[in-house]
Amino acid sequence: MSSRVALVGAGMSVFGTRPETPRELFAEAFREAVASVDRGFDAKMVQEAWIGSLGMGGYQLGNLGPFAAEAAGLAGVPVRRVENACASSGYALRDAYLAIRSGACDVALVGGLEKMNDLSKAHQRYWLGVSGDTEWERMAGLTFPGTYALMAQRHMHEYGTTEEHLVAVAEKNHANGALNPKAQFQKSVTREKIRSSAYVCSPLRLFDCCSTTDGASALLLASEERARSLTDAPVWILGSGAASDRLAVYERPSMTTLTATVAAGREALRQARLGPERVQLAEVHDCFTIAEVLALEDLGLCPKGQGGPFSESGATRRDGRRPVNTSGGLKSKGHPLGATGAAQAYEAFKQLRAEAGSRQVKGAQNALTHNVGGSGASCVVHVFGR
Amino acid sequence: MSSRVALVGAGMSVFGTRPETPRELFAEAFREAVASVDRGFDAKMVQEAWIGSLGMGGYQLGNLGPFAAEAAGLAGVPVRRVENACASSGYALRDAYLAIRSGACDVALVGGLEKMNDLSKAHQRYWLGVSGDTEWERMAGLTFPGTYALMAQRHMHEYGTTEEHLVAVAEKNHANGALNPKAQFQKSVTREKIRSSAYVCSPLRLFDCCSTTDGASALLLASEERARSLTDAPVWILGSGAASDRLAVYERPSMTTLTATVAAGREALRQARLGPERVQLAEVHDCFTIAEVLALEDLGLCPKGQGGPFSESGATRRDGRRPVNTSGGLKSKGHPLGATGAAQAYEAFKQLRAEAGSRQVKGAQNALTHNVGGSGASCVVHVFGR
Repeated sequence: MSSRVALVGAGMSVFGTRPETPRELFAEAFREAVASVDRGFDAKMVQEAWIGSLGMGGYQLGNLGPFAAEAAGLAGVPVRRVENACASSGYALRDAYLAIRSGACDVALVGGLEKMNDLSKAHQRYWLGVSGDTEWERMAGLTFPGTYALMAQRHMHEYGTTEEHLVAVAEKNHANGALNPKAQFQKSVTREKIRSSAYVCSPLRLFDCCSTTDGASALLLASEERARSLTDAPVWILGSGAASDRLAVYERPSMTTLTATVAAGREALRQARLGPERVQLAEVHDCFTIAEVLALEDLGLCPKGQGGPFSESGATRRDGRRPVNTSGGLKSKGHPLGATGAAQAYEAFKQLRAEAGSRQVKGAQNALTHNVGGSGASCVVHVFGR
Repeated sequence: MSSRVALVGAGMSVFGTRPETPRELFAEAFREAVASVDRGFDAKMVQEAWIGSLGMGGYQLGNLGPFAAEAAGLAGVPVRRVENACASSGYALRDAYLAIRSGACDVALVGGLEKMNDLSKAHQRYWLGVSGDTEWERMAGLTFPGTYALMAQRHMHEYGTTEEHLVAVAEKNHANGALNPKAQFQKSVTREKIRSSAYVCSPLRLFDCCSTTDGASALLLASEERARSLTDAPVWILGSGAASDRLAVYERPSMTTLTATVAAGREALRQARLGPERVQLAEVHDCFTIAEVLALEDLGLCPKGQGGPFSESGATRRDGRRPVNTSGGLKSKGHPLGATGAAQAYEAFKQLRAEAGSRQVKGAQNALTHNVGGSGASCVVHVFGR
C-alpha cells in the first residue's frame, strides 16, 4: 500500500462551445496531462481509469468509460464512469485516490467529459433537472437557477447579503477568467454590466449564473514511489472528504447551509491536518454566485453569514489574503458538468507548481477544491499540497 | 488497511415488471441485505456507498447515488453512481472493495438499480444502444441482439456450434430460474418450446435473449475485523479483476472472444490463487445464450470453441460438475442492467452460505461472478470463497 498519492500530471481542453467530438475533446485533455509529467511517462503506465460525466451531449450515455479510455489510447485498461451530477469527476478523483491507496494500482487516470452544446435547450433543462429532486421539485417546475435563487433570497433574509455582494463575486471570477487561456469567457466584466444584466430568477441575474459548456479534463495520479520517479514537483493529495445530502431542498433543515459541504470539507481538512484558516487557495463550486458565498461559509473560509461582505472586501481576489477561484471558477472558466471537478484539481496543480502564468498566486503551499453535485446532494472536497 | 474484505450481507428485490418506484425497489433490496447480516448490524454502520445503474427508467438520471442512499435511509453518506453499462454494479463492487482495502472505510454498501419498464420500447432501444458504439454501429442500425447474433454466427462458423447447443443453455437457465423465488421467469421451458420460438435475429431466438427487467440489488461489505464481529459466515472476496475493450465490435480482432473477459478473469483468478479448473460455481453474463458460451470459454471454464458441447453435456447444470448460473442467470432471473452485477454476487453469497434453498449446490467452497458491459467493452470478474 502506498501511503501517499500525488498528482503527477494534469490537462484540460479549452472550455467553451466546441465543435469537436467528445472523443477529440477528451484526447486534448489527456495529451496535455501526459505532456505535463516531467519525465519518463508513457500512457501505457496508466493501470486503471475513472471518468466523471453526467452524460450530456446526446452521445455516449452508457459505457462512457471505455469510450474515453479508447479516446486516450488506453483500450484494455479497467475503466468506469463515475456519475454524481456536477460532482462526477471530483468523486472520480476520490475513487482513483482510494484505489492507489489500496495498492491495486500505482498509476491512475481521472477524467471528466461533457458535451452540453449538442443538445436542445429543452433537453439541457431536462438533463440538468434530473440531478435534483424529480418527484416534488422538478415536476413542480423548480429549475436549478430557481433553487439557488431561493437559497440567495433566504441568505439575504437571514444575513443581510445583498445583490452587490453577488456582483463582487461575478466581477472577481470574470477578472480571473480573463487571465485563463482555457476559460470559456476570457474577459473582465464591469460591475455596472453585471448589475444591469437581466434577472434569470430574482435575485440571480445573467452574470450570477454559470454557462453551458463543452469540455474535458484529465489528471494523472501516482503512488509516492512512482510519483518520485516521474517528477520533482508532485502535488500531494493531503485529504479527501465526501458526503451526501437529501436530493430535495425542501427536506433539508436549512436553505443557507449545504451540510454535505460542511461534512466533506471538515473531513478533507482533518486528513490534511489543516485548519480552514490556513487554506491558501480554493477552487469552489460557483455554479451561481450565491453558491460561492455558501461555499466560503460552509468550508469555514469565513464566518457563517459573512460570505457576502467577505467577497466584497476583496479577500478572495487574486491579490487578496485568500484567493478563491483563480481559474475563473465555473462562472467564467465554464462548467462542463462532469469535467468540472478534475478541472478544479487542474488549477490546484498549476498553482502549486507555479505554472499558472499571469493568474499565478505567489508562494501558495496548499489548495482546496470543492465540487458539488445537484443543489448540494453530493459534495467532495480535496486538499492538495506541495 | 484491511487485507481482506468480505460480503457480510446481501439482498435483492424480486426481479420482473414492478409497479413500485425505484426508491421502493432499492429499499426492498437494502432491507434484505441488512436483515441478512447475522448480528449487531445497524444501517448507520455504512460509511460509504457505490450504486451501479445505467440510468434507465426515465427517472433519476443524474445524482442517482444520493437518491439511492436516501431510499436506504443513508442520507449523508458519501455515495456515487458507477456506470459501466450492464457491468455497472460489478464495477461498483470493485470500487467498494478497493476503498475498504485502502482503509478509507470498513463497512460499505454496493447497490444496483434499474427500472426499465417505465420507458417506451423506442426509448429502451435508444438507452441500450448507447452502450455500444454509436458512430459506426448503432447509427448504422446494429442493435445488441444483432451484435450477439453476429458473434453466434461466427462461433458456429469457426467451431461448429449449433442452435441446439444454445437451446441447452436456455433450458438449463430456465430450469434454475424456476427454483429462484426472486427470478422474473420462474418456470421451466421445454427444448421444443425454445427451438420453435421466433427468431429475434438469426440464429438467436426469443429464448436466447434476456428480458426487460426492473430490479435492485444490495451488498454489504466489511473489512476482516468488522466482518468477524458481524457474522460467522463471511463470504470473502478472493479476487477482483477488470478490463475494457474497444466499444465497436468491428475494431476487435475476434468476434468469438471477449478479450476484456479473458483479462479480467485471469486477474481475478490469479489474485484468488485459483486455476479456472478449480472454480466450483459461476454466475456468468448470459444476456444472450451465446454470451454464456463465450464466457465459459473466455474464463477458461472449458476449452476455446467447446462452450456449446460443454453446455450440451450437462456439465453446467445444477447437478453437473461445474454449475453455471444457478440463479437462472440474466436469461431467466432477469437483467435489470445496472442491478445485475451485484445480483450475481448475491447468488454467490447465498450459495456459499448454503442459503440458496431448492437451487442449492452442495459443498461449494468458491464461486466466480462475471459481469459484462455493452458487447464486451467492459468486464469485471470477482472470485468469492468461504
